[in-house]
Amino acid sequence: MATQVIVLNGGSSSGKSGIARCLQAILPEPWLAIGVDLLIDLMHPAKTGIDFGPDGEVIVGPRFRAVEAAWMTGVAAMARAGAHVIIDDVFLGGAASQRRWLDALAGLEVLWVGVRCASAVAAGREIARGDRDSGMAVAQAEVVHQGVTYDVEVDTTHTESLVCARSIAARIG
Amino acid sequence: MATQVIVLNGGSSSGKSGIARCLQAILPEPWLAIGVDLLIDLMHPAKTGIDFGPDGEVIVGPRFRAVEAAWMTGVAAMARAGAHVIIDDVFLGGAASQRRWLDALAGLEVLWVGVRCASAVAAGREIARGDRDSGMAVAQAEVVHQGVTYDVEVDTTHTESLVCARSIAARIG
Amino acid sequence: MATQVIVLNGGSSSGKSGIARCLQAILPEPWLAIGVDLLIDLMHPAKTGIDFGPDGEVIVGPRFRAVEAAWMTGVAAMARAGAHVIIDDVFLGGAASQRRWLDALAGLEVLWVGVRCASAVAAGREIARGDRDSGMAVAQAEVVHQGVTYDVEVDTTHTESLVCARSIAARIG
Amino acid sequence: MATQVIVLNGGSSSGKSGIARCLQAILPEPWLAIGVDLLIDLMHPAKTGIDFGPDGEVIVGPRFRAVEAAWMTGVAAMARAGAHVIIDDVFLGGAASQRRWLDALAGLEVLWVGVRCASAVAAGREIARGDRDSGMAVAQAEVVHQGVTYDVEVDTTHTESLVCARSIAARIG
Repeated sequence: MATQVIVLNGGSSSGKSGIARCLQAILPEPWLAIGVDLLIDLMHPAKTGIDFGPDGEVIVGPRFRAVEAAWMTGVAAMARAGAHVIIDDVFLGGAASQRRWLDALAGLEVLWVGVRCASAVAAGREIARGDRDSGMAVAQAEVVHQGVTYDVEVDTTHTESLVCARSIAARIG
Repeated sequence: MATQVIVLNGGSSSGKSGIARCLQAILPEPWLAIGVDLLIDLMHPAKTGIDFGPDGEVIVGPRFRAVEAAWMTGVAAMARAGAHVIIDDVFLGGAASQRRWLDALAGLEVLWVGVRCASAVAAGREIARGDRDSGMAVAQAEVVHQGVTYDVEVDTTHTESLVCARSIAARIG
Repeated sequence: MATQVIVLNGGSSSGKSGIARCLQAILPEPWLAIGVDLLIDLMHPAKTGIDFGPDGEVIVGPRFRAVEAAWMTGVAAMARAGAHVIIDDVFLGGAASQRRWLDALAGLEVLWVGVRCASAVAAGREIARGDRDSGMAVAQAEVVHQGVTYDVEVDTTHTESLVCARSIAARIG
Repeated sequence: MATQVIVLNGGSSSGKSGIARCLQAILPEPWLAIGVDLLIDLMHPAKTGIDFGPDGEVIVGPRFRAVEAAWMTGVAAMARAGAHVIIDDVFLGGAASQRRWLDALAGLEVLWVGVRCASAVAAGREIARGDRDSGMAVAQAEVVHQGVTYDVEVDTTHTESLVCARSIAARIG
């Protein structure tokens, strides 16, 4: 059955967005790239229920979780209605985060992709992107993969985004 | 019954986004503001199926319409799942555009809002925003309202966004 | 003698940038619009020497002042070398801020423009822009004009940016 | 004598901006990063005098050249007045482009840096950035270095931006 959703999971600065854009370029159909920050961008900045701790950790409040659950339901409905969707996320809760998407995407053909990057390299790329707050790359590099199951894994430490995207595209049904 | 979706319809530079941000600020619940350009932003720029004509008119191809239909289904599903959603759109097809949203949002409590702005004033604001392509404000000012039915209408020609937002908020169930 | 530099001074959300873009559109020559935030954008976010207080006030450190002085010298040199420059600034220090630009721009033909906006209206526009930090519009509305001398003054409270720009353009030598 | 200006020259998507941001992070002083697109961003989009050809080549008109000359004079004046400046440019004219900066920066202590990237890798990174217009990376990869003299050369094909930045920083006087 044809793949309807691609889920890219990896820490901050692991290279997910670049891979998503390469997938959009090389796959024949139009795919929507829905990033982890999009939902936050659609909310009023003072009302997200998200905070950042002193070491770059993300603190997610209950109000955000409620909106997020409705958001995930809607993204899944888009895919069921025929849109091809790439979800680019950071599974801060590891297996529990994957479980939430598994529930929302029930019945859809999903390709689960792990995007890894050596912690020190991701930290360097965070600096090269000019983020004001640094530390997220290191804090998230390992934890987001704990207990998560993938169909494909890529590692951007020594491999370009486009090459990673090609190995993912080869797995699209 | 409590309002679940607010639909703002108006031409380019009529002031919809500013009103949406004011609504997000003054309404107590968190509302997601989903603008007309968001879907396009999520697609690969070479694969949207959207073009712009020489006089600023938007040319929408069939491929975009197919993705857009799935998108609308998903946005409606978010609202049914409990997210409060402000949709900021340009009804290029007038009544036919409203019909598409009416179908997608069936069963939801929707507040339909018309956002008007005198054509010459909207054209001036288009220049003040620094858009490369001008002419959309004038081209769209009247046509987007043809045959469309509203619960509330506001006019930004002489009224600030925040004042318009307050009159809309007064109608929220 | 032909105007070489236009300086727009006004509080946050008073409408300076919109007027600057309208001036760029209606004046025949190409004009560079150099905004108050540009210098900050060119610096590393952790090294600006700028902070924001709890009530939206801007706290400018000595390191920023040193870089800013060199920046002003460079902007003036661009104008002396033939570039037409619109400077869009917030004179937090009132007359003292104008004095710094007067010194830097010595020998150039400058049109000094005051951009006013009723405090409550500017505060509403701040909300409509969706700024995370609010309060700057009110904090700055009056103080930035104290002791400052202008060639032209405009007020965006009830007048569109394009109309203000036309009255400024009429004064360009 | 202490380095006052760092000039990074390389083709589109060769990694100049990432290196510039890393230099800003690791060098102790505040450095201004002035990119090749900044001048264009400060102009009205319809009045730049810049066009793009069908194969991604940049066509620079005489009006842009006049403004650019004044701009370069101003950037040099900033550095002479004490600002530390990183210039990130694409020498489309090779040695002739370097000559223009050599003239503008006369008397300043400049570190000239060549940023190389294998053409195929740069083209892949262009896709990963999601640029609408592609082809610039390949078109510019070699030509921008023809006849140009450097103090340091780095190659981002297999070396991270931060590592390249460290080797440049080691040469700062």
